[in-house]
Amino acid sequence: MRRSIATVSMSGTLRQKLEAIAVARFDAIELFENDFIAFNGSASELRAMTEDLGLGIDLFQPFRDFEGMPDDAFQKSLDRAERKFDLMEALGAPLMLVCSNTSPLALDDAARSAAQLHALAERAARRNLRIGYEALAWGRCVRLYGQAWKIVEQADHPHLGLILDSFHTLSLRDNPAGIAAIRGERIFFLQMADAPLLAMDVLQWARHHRNFPGQGQFDLENFFLQVLLAGYAGPLSLEIFNDQFRETPNRRTALDAMRSLLLLESQVRARLERERERDTAVASPSRDAAAHTLQRIELFDPPRGPALEGFSFLEFGVDDDNAEALGTLLGQLGFARAGRHRTKTVTRYRQGDIQLAVNAEPASPARARFDAQGPSVCAIGLATAEPLQAASRAAALLSARHESPRGAHELQLPAIVAPGGTIVHFVPSAGGAMLDADFVATPGSTPAPDAGLVGIDHIALGLAQDQFDTWILFAKAVLGLQRGESLELADPFGLIRSSGVANATRSVRLVLNVSLSQRTRTARQVSATGRAGGGVQHIALGTRDIFATMERLRGNGVRFVPISANYYDDLLARLDLGEAAVRRMQSLDILYDRSPTGEFLHAYAFADRFFFEVVQRKAYDGYGAVNAPARMAAQEQNAESTKK
Amino acid sequence: MRRSIATVSMSGTLRQKLEAIAVARFDAIELFENDFIAFNGSASELRAMTEDLGLGIDLFQPFRDFEGMPDDAFQKSLDRAERKFDLMEALGAPLMLVCSNTSPLALDDAARSAAQLHALAERAARRNLRIGYEALAWGRCVRLYGQAWKIVEQADHPHLGLILDSFHTLSLRDNPAGIAAIRGERIFFLQMADAPLLAMDVLQWARHHRNFPGQGQFDLENFFLQVLLAGYAGPLSLEIFNDQFRETPNRRTALDAMRSLLLLESQVRARLERERERDTAVASPSRDAAAHTLQRIELFDPPRGPALEGFSFLEFGVDDDNAEALGTLLGQLGFARAGRHRTKTVTRYRQGDIQLAVNAEPASPARARFDAQGPSVCAIGLATAEPLQAASRAAALLSARHESPRGAHELQLPAIVAPGGTIVHFVPSAGGAMLDADFVATPGSTPAPDAGLVGIDHIALGLAQDQFDTWILFAKAVLGLQRGESLELADPFGLIRSSGVANATRSVRLVLNVSLSQRTRTARQVSATGRAGGGVQHIALGTRDIFATMERLRGNGVRFVPISANYYDDLLARLDLGEAAVRRMQSLDILYDRSPTGEFLHAYAFADRFFFEVVQRKAYDGYGAVNAPARMAAQEQNAESTKK
Repeated sequence: MRRSIATVSMSGTLRQKLEAIAVARFDAIELFENDFIAFNGSASELRAMTEDLGLGIDLFQPFRDFEGMPDDAFQKSLDRAERKFDLMEALGAPLMLVCSNTSPLALDDAARSAAQLHALAERAARRNLRIGYEALAWGRCVRLYGQAWKIVEQADHPHLGLILDSFHTLSLRDNPAGIAAIRGERIFFLQMADAPLLAMDVLQWARHHRNFPGQGQFDLENFFLQVLLAGYAGPLSLEIFNDQFRETPNRRTALDAMRSLLLLESQVRARLERERERDTAVASPSRDAAAHTLQRIELFDPPRGPALEGFSFLEFGVDDDNAEALGTLLGQLGFARAGRHRTKTVTRYRQGDIQLAVNAEPASPARARFDAQGPSVCAIGLATAEPLQAASRAAALLSARHESPRGAHELQLPAIVAPGGTIVHFVPSAGGAMLDADFVATPGSTPAPDAGLVGIDHIALGLAQDQFDTWILFAKAVLGLQRGESLELADPFGLIRSSGVANATRSVRLVLNVSLSQRTRTARQVSATGRAGGGVQHIALGTRDIFATMERLRGNGVRFVPISANYYDDLLARLDLGEAAVRRMQSLDILYDRSPTGEFLHAYAFADRFFFEVVQRKAYDGYGAVNAPARMAAQEQNAESTKK
Repeated sequence: MRRSIATVSMSGTLRQKLEAIAVARFDAIELFENDFIAFNGSASELRAMTEDLGLGIDLFQPFRDFEGMPDDAFQKSLDRAERKFDLMEALGAPLMLVCSNTSPLALDDAARSAAQLHALAERAARRNLRIGYEALAWGRCVRLYGQAWKIVEQADHPHLGLILDSFHTLSLRDNPAGIAAIRGERIFFLQMADAPLLAMDVLQWARHHRNFPGQGQFDLENFFLQVLLAGYAGPLSLEIFNDQFRETPNRRTALDAMRSLLLLESQVRARLERERERDTAVASPSRDAAAHTLQRIELFDPPRGPALEGFSFLEFGVDDDNAEALGTLLGQLGFARAGRHRTKTVTRYRQGDIQLAVNAEPASPARARFDAQGPSVCAIGLATAEPLQAASRAAALLSARHESPRGAHELQLPAIVAPGGTIVHFVPSAGGAMLDADFVATPGSTPAPDAGLVGIDHIALGLAQDQFDTWILFAKAVLGLQRGESLELADPFGLIRSSGVANATRSVRLVLNVSLSQRTRTARQVSATGRAGGGVQHIALGTRDIFATMERLRGNGVRFVPISANYYDDLLARLDLGEAAVRRMQSLDILYDRSPTGEFLHAYAFADRFFFEVVQRKAYDGYGAVNAPARMAAQEQNAESTKK
């Protein structure tokens, strides 16, 4: 399909927006009128610029408060429209968006609206321009696409059609099923927007919180499907009003925008294919419609994303001093030094199924990361049966490939760059064994006593606010993860919004943390990563017996975040856990949470820039968010008392 | 009255919160339970700490999901309560807040709720503790104070009373008039919160957007009045959940909190006094009630704020180089060099009623400001008939006094420090003449030709987000300004929230601009002021004939922000101004807005860190916000083309 985006969706001057949109390989733009009004060039200069960049101006928008007006206001609006038609001719923009009237003067009179839109279309037709009529969710009389369509039908002019916008329909919980019954050629344009489900005034919601398909919580797949089944074959466009996008570097926004369309197309394609493959022995109109649509419309078809099986390894970027300090801590955490890399200054640590690599190789990407950000997780290995296919899907969905320098006999792992620069390697399922090829055992290193840590439960990332939607879309489109609940946690210096993403089997879990304040620990960590906009904040390691593990780790000298005695008194008041159990948790600084299905016990070890969490998960699907305020306050109070 | 604040209203660890609250001279706190749970000390340690700081713990809050429960849950809750009573005894906290139940298990059965609260009060009574019951706006069955009061009446226990919270009542648009009929001693506690009027889910509104009295849009004066008329004599407390306050330095928050209570008390006091002074010849129960209340309750009584008459002068802090550059620009703007200060390196410029002082005195506060922030407005003079009284009211409302070093024969102007460090001088009405005392005419300086600028129309400040509520309250309480409309303006790199504050005669107007993004020009300017959190961003100078003024200024070589030709084409399409008038505006880069009552014409001159606006105002009360996007984009595009 022809892919388009409204200029209002991006930050920057119009010139900067167009360049970013072109780099992301869009076919066209919707020109937001205010962007043109503020543009320091003429219509023909803008036309030349878009042509140079290979972009069409598919839509000029919006033209407001037109239909259903008293006669005198209507006549004035026709004059206003003629001036905008002049402009559209100069721009080479064939289609104008008329959104439903919000003026208090608007009359609830569909026949009048239809007649006035007919008159407008007639004027447009003289110049071979077209008018698209769209129902705004907060229009005075017309709010639903069904109402707008009735008026378009009644107006009955070939230069007048319908414009659909998923936000306006889904924000009002209107049913898009009726769209499929509209003749596709009467739909002149399609705008897609997602949004988080927010209980707020629809206008405020619309103006500040829309986002790209896949970043929010609307069922856009179904909406898009209905439009395709109608026979629509025009552009697929994005019109996003979002406070964050207004300040996000626009190259990233444009890439996210294109990624969201590719994902949406591929999801709908897969759905149509499933429908087409239904039993052919039985007559099925929906099967025939699906087959017809797939023949008619070009929809993006990326390689299928293979299932992820778990975290294969994590790699830390450090210098020599930090390599030693981290090595000491890992030893205390029960990790055995399992070898050195054949050709690089990389040490491998193992415990249970956990593999960690500490990379102090000079002039490596890991060291570059260390130089920019201090000790940090620079790479993540994800296990999958089909690493190449995973990388190939990622590339199709616009992830940059990462090529690392490789010595003889070393393993080649396909790798991509996640938002912010962390490298994601796709590792064959038997990766543990295969990684052995890269490492030689270090003779003489006696294995530390195992602490019972068996696997990586989850990784928490601290992200800048404008990285959140980017990460959600990356996790969904490239890694195939699904979004869980989003919670707000009180740090002593502001709120943290925390959202889990995980695969279906829960073997890969990420937690995305965003500080809503500039002054929390999370915000300070994120800000230390500079332009990267964040990175791994903590690593949660799983155990099957947290009490035994904690006793071992304490014995090894690992320092844990001290939890207030008041926390345990409250736990006793809230839950019927029994005094002995709670006092045992207290003695080991173990936090506790319970869900309808299970339990979660966890404790936090201090480290330098990131920290380690020890967790025991029993049929529990969250991350102990209820305990985060107590933990964050404890970290702050600990820092406070250390200062004294 | 006894003044209190909930610990949840402040940023920091509990220890830090208490210190800030004590410094602002509160009498007591409401202890938010989560703050205690996370506190790294025992209840008796906390009690000792608050006693050392002179703070009582007047309320322990909240105890949730208690009343109206099935029997088994009720029994468990009683056990939970006993543990919290233990804690309250150790803390020395006499009163527990029970908020109306939000659990899906809660039964809509007032008799059951009353019986269960009676049982709880009976347990509390054994320890000489008390229970206050509060209606949460999002309670499952009980949402209004009237419902809560009926249950308290029905429960009929001396250790059970009502807790009132203005947010819960006013957010639901419930009428507080009924409060006056409740016996005052049955009201155990009073929580005040203001909020901006937002069309959103009440729980989200409550948890993120409350603010201090005077910072929002509720009628708190009337709410408080009803409570006083009821005969309430307990603490006046603040319970504020606000995302900004969670990160604002807590000393400032505590000061704002106290200022808001002082203002509220003084407003209600004035209202009661007006009522008391009504014609005594006629019997009036409301007059008697007012007189009785004033006798019974101690309410803050600051000096009355005198009327402000206008801007008397602005002072810029610069070094020698910048003094020269600014002097050149002021000359081009039509200002005459009107003298040098008797003892300091300060030059005075005049035009019409405008007086500007350019201060390059080494080791002065003005220079300190320059050293920290670059060229900036360091002081503002406001004309009033009673400068001393203005300063004395400001001091009573917690503004710091500013004492400047003064030479012989120099004028002493009472001065205060505005938030962020700008000095505000109160200047006698005949200030122009009086300032003459400080300055000697510079012989030989030929007056530049006047450009028709007659006065300071308004000053716009760029503020950090967390300074906005602080400024609103300062403007209201200390300067007696009233808040106008709040608008959101699109800069190419994010939204700007812009709010006017002005006095009744409109002779003093300030515009408070806050960038919601980190990347706008406003955000960059604010961030350059460091810890000050902002300062004067532009100065709007009024003319009675903007065309003549602009022609003169252009002739003098002043550079104005170039406005896109597209802006004028759109103006022609939108408004029936006539081609000639619009093209004349275009030739001079004049922007235009129209209101139902009048017109506004304005243009923007470039300067270094702040800029000058030339405005002609005709029976128009706004600031041309509709034109801000075109102006901000023009500034950005100008910077872009300068870079090339």
